[in-house]
Amino acid sequence: MKILLIIADGLGDRPSDQLGGRTPLEASNKPNIDYLAKNGMVGLIDPIAPGIIPGSDTSHLSYLGYDPNRYYTGRGPFEALGTGLSLEAGDIAFRANFATVDGRGMIVDRRAGRIREGTGHLARSLNMRIEDVEIFFKEGTEHRGALVLRGKDLSPQVSDNDPHKEGVEANSVVPTSRQGEKTARILNEFYAKSRDILSGHDVNRGRKEKGLNEANAILFRGGGMVPELPNFDRKYSVKGGFVAGVALVSGICRLAGLKQYKTEGATGSTDTNLKAKLTGAVDGLRESDFMLVNIKGTDIAGHDGDAVKKKEFIERIDKAIGEVLMDNLGNLVVAFTGDHSTPASLKEHSSDPVPILIHYNGSRKDGIGAFSETSVRNGTLRLKGMDLMNVLMSSANLAEKYGA
Amino acid sequence: MKILLIIADGLGDRPSDQLGGRTPLEASNKPNIDYLAKNGMVGLIDPIAPGIIPGSDTSHLSYLGYDPNRYYTGRGPFEALGTGLSLEAGDIAFRANFATVDGRGMIVDRRAGRIREGTGHLARSLNMRIEDVEIFFKEGTEHRGALVLRGKDLSPQVSDNDPHKEGVEANSVVPTSRQGEKTARILNEFYAKSRDILSGHDVNRGRKEKGLNEANAILFRGGGMVPELPNFDRKYSVKGGFVAGVALVSGICRLAGLKQYKTEGATGSTDTNLKAKLTGAVDGLRESDFMLVNIKGTDIAGHDGDAVKKKEFIERIDKAIGEVLMDNLGNLVVAFTGDHSTPASLKEHSSDPVPILIHYNGSRKDGIGAFSETSVRNGTLRLKGMDLMNVLMSSANLAEKYGA
Repeated sequence: MKILLIIADGLGDRPSDQLGGRTPLEASNKPNIDYLAKNGMVGLIDPIAPGIIPGSDTSHLSYLGYDPNRYYTGRGPFEALGTGLSLEAGDIAFRANFATVDGRGMIVDRRAGRIREGTGHLARSLNMRIEDVEIFFKEGTEHRGALVLRGKDLSPQVSDNDPHKEGVEANSVVPTSRQGEKTARILNEFYAKSRDILSGHDVNRGRKEKGLNEANAILFRGGGMVPELPNFDRKYSVKGGFVAGVALVSGICRLAGLKQYKTEGATGSTDTNLKAKLTGAVDGLRESDFMLVNIKGTDIAGHDGDAVKKKEFIERIDKAIGEVLMDNLGNLVVAFTGDHSTPASLKEHSSDPVPILIHYNGSRKDGIGAFSETSVRNGTLRLKGMDLMNVLMSSANLAEKYGA
Repeated sequence: MKILLIIADGLGDRPSDQLGGRTPLEASNKPNIDYLAKNGMVGLIDPIAPGIIPGSDTSHLSYLGYDPNRYYTGRGPFEALGTGLSLEAGDIAFRANFATVDGRGMIVDRRAGRIREGTGHLARSLNMRIEDVEIFFKEGTEHRGALVLRGKDLSPQVSDNDPHKEGVEANSVVPTSRQGEKTARILNEFYAKSRDILSGHDVNRGRKEKGLNEANAILFRGGGMVPELPNFDRKYSVKGGFVAGVALVSGICRLAGLKQYKTEGATGSTDTNLKAKLTGAVDGLRESDFMLVNIKGTDIAGHDGDAVKKKEFIERIDKAIGEVLMDNLGNLVVAFTGDHSTPASLKEHSSDPVPILIHYNGSRKDGIGAFSETSVRNGTLRLKGMDLMNVLMSSANLAEKYGA
């Protein structure tokens, strides 16, 4: 059998006043998801472990079978993946800010007036080579961005240049071990060069004219090395693919060696074309054995604190599942879950365990129809994220016996 | 939010003939606990792991987030804590017996007639200094006690002097590695000096007159080094405190750096003043963020094999919770559980998982009202002891996200 893992980002929730004390899953009309639940197995999954609040990065690593305690190397590499930069194992990546410094080099605004426009132009001007090291800069939201170094003998064993306060100069980068000497030298040269480039940049000339703080310096912090994930296909002896609109999830799947299937109108937001996404995934399963689909809208509605929008988005997912999947269940292991909970009442990720269903022909049937945080508690499954691939592989009869 | 963790020692149980086949929790009338359960989340917790029978020491370590596999350094240090001795990291502690030896030094009674009276006097006479090492002796129940060495260059790498049989002399202590040389020398000198002191002691003169075996020697065994627990407040970035009547629990909490709040009438037995205990804890939460309250009576009733007394004690806890807590739930994460099961039918600890409830405003509501070993099985929570602090911290919105 083939495996389709549908991850509704931030799916889990808590009772909401907006929904009469029900959760979005409890309040939603979702006959197709409920059918799969009733005729399959259900339960709860802790993406990392009970009480640990997952990020989308750590939970997707865990779901794919890469222990985040080993492979999550800090925010720098994963935020850089989130900007859409195509990273390689061994790259050194930092979280970065556009900032404003005065004529003496003193930081006057760590966020360059929360600049919104022109950051792409500024970022592209900072791609350069120093010695044998390639440097990439990519803008994120507002003043945020990612700085990446690619080359030989690099190390994350260096200090930040970001002093985390204003009224002082940016710090010189110093190595925190001998391995970091070259990296520190390159970073200090990058800071000097970037000051020159940004100071003379058209975008900043425009900002000056408008009386806005110039984005004339780069502050960076939280450096880490992009981990080498063992190749997914070799790890599981399958061909794996994914459909995702969100850069962070795409980046992790690519690092794992999953093949990306791009689908029309998959935006990673609540207006994404869900039918196209699922159709693309099912099409991809003609050549792949495993497909991960990440649907971001549930998480966005949770962060917005909008339980009603989250409920409605779940109903849209259900409709797309009805249109695309229900006639194609024959040879398929379908799993539906979230990568974490994002309760609308909290507007943030929480550690609440996430409901999960797994449906395939011939499976145990829990008979629990109304798929929700509460109903699934009596189901067969009680998993941690790191268990998921094993359960899916064995459900699809693709796993080997451990022993005789 | 602030966190109140109420640990009813030995809470979990098994069906009891004394209660018509019900457990003490099932048989008890406890409207307040049931309210918290119904409006919060419930489940089962394995203090260490399934099948591992916890001590109060290993389970409290685990609940506070200190892996007992790493920090439980043997019975010596933890039994010494249980006597009420105030220990410091690095102290070397042994379990000890008062014993009786004859004129030739042969052990004639390893338990000195199970001596009950005068042990405090005897113990105090044994506090001494040898070289630069301070030696503390503290009596426990009957013939039992604790021997503690504090000083430089000490090590638990030494043999016992207790031969575990009668009719022979106490063993000379030998180092089991070079690190133990000084410790062995000090211990052998302590044995000689303690024989002199005890032989001439008033208490023994009195025992001789009554024809009782004299407590004229100290046998010790199970030495270990008191572990250095990473400071709780720094570990979790909160201020932590505790209320406990039992020396072992107090000792562990103090080692972790939790602030002790003493309350009137908290005796650590079944006649303890529960209302004062909970009031003290709630008062303490004005300055602290986390409070552990240990209530011992349930465990004592379990060890006594008295399921009815255990049921009644649970009802007393419920009454105190009603009086102190129910009007103070607004800003509070309340957790109620036990540190292990002490089935009255067994009169000993068992590895049966322990029911737990966690209540806070806005949480998922499991809707399971009658809090007991059986009812909670369909709840959201299925924890190990080491998960507990993470779950409580994230429930109180005091945890950091792991990832982005």
